[in-house]
Amino acid sequence: MPFAIRDIIDRLRGDVPPLDDTVDVLLGPGGPDTPVGGAAVAFMPSIEAIERAAALGANLLIAHEGVYYSHRMPERLPDDDPVYAFKRDLLRRAGVNVYRHHDDCHRPAPDPITLGLVRALGWEAALERMLPAAAVLAVPAMRADEAAARVKARLGLSGARFAGDPGAVCRRIGVLAGYRGGGGLAVPLLREERLDLIVAGEGPEWETPEYVRDAVHLGAAKALLFVGHAESEAPGMRLVAERLQEACPGLPVHWLDDKPALRYL
Amino acid sequence: MPFAIRDIIDRLRGDVPPLDDTVDVLLGPGGPDTPVGGAAVAFMPSIEAIERAAALGANLLIAHEGVYYSHRMPERLPDDDPVYAFKRDLLRRAGVNVYRHHDDCHRPAPDPITLGLVRALGWEAALERMLPAAAVLAVPAMRADEAAARVKARLGLSGARFAGDPGAVCRRIGVLAGYRGGGGLAVPLLREERLDLIVAGEGPEWETPEYVRDAVHLGAAKALLFVGHAESEAPGMRLVAERLQEACPGLPVHWLDDKPALRYL
Repeated sequence: MPFAIRDIIDRLRGDVPPLDDTVDVLLGPGGPDTPVGGAAVAFMPSIEAIERAAALGANLLIAHEGVYYSHRMPERLPDDDPVYAFKRDLLRRAGVNVYRHHDDCHRPAPDPITLGLVRALGWEAALERMLPAAAVLAVPAMRADEAAARVKARLGLSGARFAGDPGAVCRRIGVLAGYRGGGGLAVPLLREERLDLIVAGEGPEWETPEYVRDAVHLGAAKALLFVGHAESEAPGMRLVAERLQEACPGLPVHWLDDKPALRYL
Repeated sequence: MPFAIRDIIDRLRGDVPPLDDTVDVLLGPGGPDTPVGGAAVAFMPSIEAIERAAALGANLLIAHEGVYYSHRMPERLPDDDPVYAFKRDLLRRAGVNVYRHHDDCHRPAPDPITLGLVRALGWEAALERMLPAAAVLAVPAMRADEAAARVKARLGLSGARFAGDPGAVCRRIGVLAGYRGGGGLAVPLLREERLDLIVAGEGPEWETPEYVRDAVHLGAAKALLFVGHAESEAPGMRLVAERLQEACPGLPVHWLDDKPALRYL
């Protein structure tokens, strides 16, 4: 008997209890009882990813971010925008359902998105502690610019953004996936975990980068590397795909790798 | 008779009525009645900017962003963080008051921050319309990658982030300073103003960049350039400094140029 969409969602959620307020939502022509012929997993549910899922015979696309370019699902789609209209119609026409696996995805301990990133960085053996929103690593001493070069090479990045002291000797590194590079999370982590370097996806430019700038001005050896949101969370979604395949023997599960939308000039 | 801090704030605010809820705040050892021996203007009130203001004999530093690494002033500063503690004590020790000129700064029509950016880009003659949160430009046709190269050169950027079609022919460009590159502002603007290119400071990576990616996948010739938050708003703060100097003859007003905290690797 084939898996229904609700079975897949149950396996993705695991043993975390349902949330009252969540951005995780199922969009598309089917409902939770729809049988799943195949599943695809991507970081972004771009139009191209939806088309690739359909071409692979997958009627369920599991993605980390939202379909309609905002964290919260818009209350109403603009009725005069051809991009929104095409995407909405594409789901129906291609018979692809998109399930957003975001809030529940981050809830297990350890967070598979953080774990996937730490593994992609080749730093799992250096993992000292996994916090709800960050990994704390204890690494052999290296300069911040060496650490940045290593991160760029491991993640295959063409660019990244850096703040602080390139010569800072890094022994303790904090890794924060996605939009967790903001000051509310990253600044207390720097202080409380006595970190030398933060590696994060993205965050507001006037928060953590400015704290690091001020700290370095006072003589502290601190640094920050923003690797990009997609770049920091795609490895974790790939891990989610691998785990789903293990949990659903017989179900075709396809990982859709993709280039980030932003590139460096 | 010297200007008091409240006189300077009145001149900065101009004829916009006071806001009930604002991030604009005066921090430091003095109050609104403190006589101003000299004023300095910067985008960021970094520790270095505060020290430079003090060295110039300026006891008032006017800055666009917050002192303590967040958009809203923290209700309570962490009591075990040496960077916060140093900065708080520095204001007292150096006798520098920091006035955040942010919300009121953006309220005149045209917004001086947007106008300063358009001028720095050399595009004031191309200005078609100034909206509350954006400038709409009609430019001679150029490719998006040519426009990006021009923007980088005019702003002196070592890097920038780009999404969309480098070959898109751009005749209509939207310019959004600061954090206005998010989907809530930039996506409707692209549609309603039939823009080919958005030039913005920063914005969440999963919003406008993903919309542009999808639009290009459907064959639309669209592009997006994120130039950096500080890079996009510093020219406008420089304009604020020039206007303050005109409004306060005899008051020494110093523009503090600075490098952004983030650099590209």
